[in-house]
Amino acid sequence: MTPTEPVVPRFQEELGLLKTHLLSMGGLAEERLRAAMTGLVDRDLGPLREVEGGDGPLNRLHVEIDSFAFRLLALHQPVATDLRSVVAAIKINSDLERVGDLAVNIAQAARRYLDFTPVKPLLDLPRMAGIAQAMLRDALDSYVRRDVALARSVLRRDDELDALKTQIFRELLSYMLEEPAKIPPALELILVSRHLERIGDHATNIAEDVIFMVSAEDVRHAAREPGT
Amino acid sequence: MTPTEPVVPRFQEELGLLKTHLLSMGGLAEERLRAAMTGLVDRDLGPLREVEGGDGPLNRLHVEIDSFAFRLLALHQPVATDLRSVVAAIKINSDLERVGDLAVNIAQAARRYLDFTPVKPLLDLPRMAGIAQAMLRDALDSYVRRDVALARSVLRRDDELDALKTQIFRELLSYMLEEPAKIPPALELILVSRHLERIGDHATNIAEDVIFMVSAEDVRHAAREPGT
Repeated sequence: MTPTEPVVPRFQEELGLLKTHLLSMGGLAEERLRAAMTGLVDRDLGPLREVEGGDGPLNRLHVEIDSFAFRLLALHQPVATDLRSVVAAIKINSDLERVGDLAVNIAQAARRYLDFTPVKPLLDLPRMAGIAQAMLRDALDSYVRRDVALARSVLRRDDELDALKTQIFRELLSYMLEEPAKIPPALELILVSRHLERIGDHATNIAEDVIFMVSAEDVRHAAREPGT
Repeated sequence: MTPTEPVVPRFQEELGLLKTHLLSMGGLAEERLRAAMTGLVDRDLGPLREVEGGDGPLNRLHVEIDSFAFRLLALHQPVATDLRSVVAAIKINSDLERVGDLAVNIAQAARRYLDFTPVKPLLDLPRMAGIAQAMLRDALDSYVRRDVALARSVLRRDDELDALKTQIFRELLSYMLEEPAKIPPALELILVSRHLERIGDHATNIAEDVIFMVSAEDVRHAAREPGT
């Protein structure tokens, strides 16, 4: 590097780094969700304890990404789409941190669930988790690649998640009505389904931020319907 | 105004306007929450229908505040605490919009609840709502007045909300175990308590953003424990 080159790293390079950090954050959040669901389905305390005790790395990354993004704003004072990209990163970072918290909530509900006889074989909850994970991954990819079509596909899948949640609720309700002993464990499973729904909501938030970032179009109140 | 005066309004004036808009947004969100709870407690469909159908004004304000804040960033390119104030406003704006969505969720659960014989007189849920409302109001005030002590008091009250939620859950569980006919309506009340808990979470998010904004101290992972 010659002395005439800029000391401040170029904005696009730093933005690239920010995106990489967000992908790591998303990877960590997803891993925690997967471990919580594995613990629930396999009735294995090991992964649940890990999820409950291990939010340090995600929380540290959350703080680091925020500082990095704020430094980027202050140093480069980006405008237009670059500005929207960095602010979107700050919001996405919050969403991912909450996903990590929800993984802990799922692990806690799973742990309480393991105290009871299983209500039923768990098939729909892992399906919900699979959809939520895919939504999250695609939402992050749509941010990195500025891919509005992919972001829109995330919004559509939220309805699928919602339908599954309603179906799970009805089924568990029927178990509870038939056999009162199943009420406490079934309630834990309902909670898990709500946490998964919220993970889908966070993926939806991210997708909406991406659409706004790329097109400066505010789809947020055209596409979104509050769930139940 | 003489031609030598700046054409661009001063940053502090615009930031003041942004704060006023956020307070209006908070007022709207709070009003909707209050109407949903009134409909639930008084078994009155009127306010519930209003909440379910009336999210237009809040959504419009959400979009306007976002545009205003982005324009402020692009036009004035603030740094340090001013930058953090505007980014905090964008995040707070999202939180308030979600509170509005949660009021709709409460109204929907309340409407389903009204199809059943009441499970019990509702005392603790209105108490939870009162705490959540006060937290929200104080969190917003702490933003406007840059009052870290007030923001910290919001964080402390989240534990109170959490304790009430657990107590409500246990009580409703005992009703369900005693009398299966009470299972469906009791489930709706449990959902309402979860929605109220989430409103408290949003107030907590706002308070954490305020503490970060004022002190650039990241308390978010010292003070926060994921709920259940």
